[in-house]
Amino acid sequence: MVWTLDEIAAQIDGKVYGDGSHQIEKIATLKKAEKSDISFLASSKYKKFLENSRAGAVLVDLDSASLVSTNAIVVDDPHVAYAKVATLLYPNEKAVSGVHPTAWISPDSHCHNTASIGAHVFIDAGVEIAENVEIGPGCVIQQGVTIASGTRLTANITLCKQVSIGKNVLIHPGVVIGSDGFGLANDKGKWIKVPQLGSVEIADDVEIGTNTTIDRGALDDTIVATGVKLDNQIHIAHNVTIGEHTVIAGCVGIAGSTSIGKHCAIGGGVCISGHLTITDGVQITGMSMVTKSIKESGSYSSGIPVESTQQWHKNVVRYRTMNKLVDRVKQLETLTK
Amino acid sequence: MVWTLDEIAAQIDGKVYGDGSHQIEKIATLKKAEKSDISFLASSKYKKFLENSRAGAVLVDLDSASLVSTNAIVVDDPHVAYAKVATLLYPNEKAVSGVHPTAWISPDSHCHNTASIGAHVFIDAGVEIAENVEIGPGCVIQQGVTIASGTRLTANITLCKQVSIGKNVLIHPGVVIGSDGFGLANDKGKWIKVPQLGSVEIADDVEIGTNTTIDRGALDDTIVATGVKLDNQIHIAHNVTIGEHTVIAGCVGIAGSTSIGKHCAIGGGVCISGHLTITDGVQITGMSMVTKSIKESGSYSSGIPVESTQQWHKNVVRYRTMNKLVDRVKQLETLTK
Amino acid sequence: MVWTLDEIAAQIDGKVYGDGSHQIEKIATLKKAEKSDISFLASSKYKKFLENSRAGAVLVDLDSASLVSTNAIVVDDPHVAYAKVATLLYPNEKAVSGVHPTAWISPDSHCHNTASIGAHVFIDAGVEIAENVEIGPGCVIQQGVTIASGTRLTANITLCKQVSIGKNVLIHPGVVIGSDGFGLANDKGKWIKVPQLGSVEIADDVEIGTNTTIDRGALDDTIVATGVKLDNQIHIAHNVTIGEHTVIAGCVGIAGSTSIGKHCAIGGGVCISGHLTITDGVQITGMSMVTKSIKESGSYSSGIPVESTQQWHKNVVRYRTMNKLVDRVKQLETLTK
Repeated sequence: MVWTLDEIAAQIDGKVYGDGSHQIEKIATLKKAEKSDISFLASSKYKKFLENSRAGAVLVDLDSASLVSTNAIVVDDPHVAYAKVATLLYPNEKAVSGVHPTAWISPDSHCHNTASIGAHVFIDAGVEIAENVEIGPGCVIQQGVTIASGTRLTANITLCKQVSIGKNVLIHPGVVIGSDGFGLANDKGKWIKVPQLGSVEIADDVEIGTNTTIDRGALDDTIVATGVKLDNQIHIAHNVTIGEHTVIAGCVGIAGSTSIGKHCAIGGGVCISGHLTITDGVQITGMSMVTKSIKESGSYSSGIPVESTQQWHKNVVRYRTMNKLVDRVKQLETLTK
Repeated sequence: MVWTLDEIAAQIDGKVYGDGSHQIEKIATLKKAEKSDISFLASSKYKKFLENSRAGAVLVDLDSASLVSTNAIVVDDPHVAYAKVATLLYPNEKAVSGVHPTAWISPDSHCHNTASIGAHVFIDAGVEIAENVEIGPGCVIQQGVTIASGTRLTANITLCKQVSIGKNVLIHPGVVIGSDGFGLANDKGKWIKVPQLGSVEIADDVEIGTNTTIDRGALDDTIVATGVKLDNQIHIAHNVTIGEHTVIAGCVGIAGSTSIGKHCAIGGGVCISGHLTITDGVQITGMSMVTKSIKESGSYSSGIPVESTQQWHKNVVRYRTMNKLVDRVKQLETLTK
Repeated sequence: MVWTLDEIAAQIDGKVYGDGSHQIEKIATLKKAEKSDISFLASSKYKKFLENSRAGAVLVDLDSASLVSTNAIVVDDPHVAYAKVATLLYPNEKAVSGVHPTAWISPDSHCHNTASIGAHVFIDAGVEIAENVEIGPGCVIQQGVTIASGTRLTANITLCKQVSIGKNVLIHPGVVIGSDGFGLANDKGKWIKVPQLGSVEIADDVEIGTNTTIDRGALDDTIVATGVKLDNQIHIAHNVTIGEHTVIAGCVGIAGSTSIGKHCAIGGGVCISGHLTITDGVQITGMSMVTKSIKESGSYSSGIPVESTQQWHKNVVRYRTMNKLVDRVKQLETLTK
């Protein structure tokens, strides 16, 4: 697929500086781009590569336009423009409609005839699959699941019974949605299971990263709202709710019944305790420990970054004996009174 | 399925206050319950919902019984009672016995005729599957695995060779049991594999959460004792042993050869180093870092919870420069002598 | 399979002390070994078991050779020798060549006739599988993947399109390689997807632990170099590179575009931020937080280990109020001037 700069600019609300008829085939970094490639300047630290880049065109903002020696498309946000141009140049291949001969579909389910059902897929009774849904190889879709139009399950995904998935959701391999929450009651020293009777609702335009797990609710549902983007290996416990357009990086754990607001950004490896409320517009930096509700938007952090192991040992000891230092200061204060 | 309050009370050792013939169909929270629902008061913070609840009955302890304006069943522990009543009202549907036409079972294995073997399951030679076992779709059961009666594997689970699973175990999707432990020896700069020759023993009444992994032992076995409950995405390394009735929350990592006692409770995101011994009755709060053995029961913690990112930066600097503060105090002590 | 001590010694560059014709069948710990077993002394803390061990022979270094009352094989590094002897005594069973009747292989792919393709495997168009490759049950191999000779995929593994796997790689169940990286651009409050156009290259002799995930690059590739050993549940984001013979323990998360050197050792639960460079020969202890590049080899650490929950509460308060302590010291300094 070949696009001219004029055609690209029209799609992304950009303005061409230079030869609008120049033809673009691929996207590449400033360092690697060739004449038929378009590149982009999304961060000022890459400005140094502009001068020697052989790119056929560069996506830039107005401030940096004068630095481009080749063709440019000036846009408000080069990173957003890059995402859109990459989507133009590399559209998703639409999977072929139909059912793979090795798939097994319950006669009591309903798959739209535009859907694509891959190899070794299992679809149980009561499942509803809408138009243009793609179910990749090895997926297990249990009883009563509904999947709205345009949603893609890549491979080896498990959707447990009754789970509801919105439109244009993208789910990566190894994801499990709707497994039992961790509900237990202690009956004289033994733990007995609290049946998990709720379900999971995934709204439209959600993306769910590889091996992420989202548990079903205990009585009410676990909810992931529109436009939420989840990275890999995230653990979302029962009855969590995640607000619209929140992004969560890899390896985050969110304990039961916690509610996370809209437009939040949660860094990798963060753990959030149960029964908390995180308000809208909160950023939490990587590896932070959240044990209380956060009521004001803004940026929050915890954790102490690495130092040499030798220095670390000393600092841990000082931390552990801070009470003695406090006592010494108290003593000095008495003496100098 | 409909139960009268008298029938329910008989099952859970409770005492009915009010109309014992009142009929119950479902369970619901105090806020959402209707006339045919039973609800429960498991925490005093929900007392405020008692007054306006439309529940047909409420499970309460004796102290709160007088606050219930509708029917009540008085029990010792309303949370335990709720778990039991939910199990009565929503029993597990027993899977249909038999083998799905897409499953593949080695002729050199043995599956009891009451077992249920799902779609696209693979069962290798030497496997023994007892009565009423359920193997959900997509599971892979490798050579020589034994699974005792009443155990359920939901979907897409892998049991590696020789692993032994007890009775009434519940294993959630994506779990892998008996994969090689991380055993390596450094041979002049290159890492060579130490063959992992042990296995894994899972005792009775264990529950294993989604995408949790339990590695086989190096020489001896990795052991998970009776009644242990594991949440999602837990990593249990080779030769770990976990004592009876211990619960472990999501995202915990336990390094090799560590032994955890009975009746412990380990919070989410905790990491425990290898070759340690944690005694019985230890609680470890979420995200703690355990690098030494714990010899006395009790509650243990580490980690500093979030603060504003601005404040965090300042505190990290103060932490890192505590040695200077100590020096200043020393200097003052000299001056005031 | 039976080996004499002379035969074993010849394979591992060792020297027999005692009866070189003694026959060995198995390997076992000093405590459990019997006459037909060989054991090893890999750490001085097990010396106490030497005296009463019934092992037929012990692998030891020269310094400890005199402590062995039975036969010994003296080697430079008993741990390495143990790994090699275990591999001799318990060789991998070579999987039977051929295609399982339930596997589905695209006619537009190419599998070498010595390869073993397991049950319910799906192999898409354009895939190239070399000699002696083993693809275990339930694996999904997407379009254009190449797998070099001698590589083993155990079970339920997903390789996404175009991924390239080297020779003699061992991949454990639940691993996903080549799924989309977490690339997003914020378009006026909504997150839009940045297509992930790179791939993943896994070099020779790599081992990848259970449920570990390695994302494809955004434009360039994610790279795992020769001899890297990865434990379970590791998250490797897009465009990470990991240098030769580096080992990474379980539950580590590495954010996008970070580059890790050769011969590093990263402990369990470590999180590493994006866009960093970790030089060669770096050790990072478990649960550390790495937010800056590391330019010198050596050992690095962070994190404060557990104490009693009561003590922890006090220390967190002291940490949080260190500024007050600093102010008090300042005040004292003024007074004593």
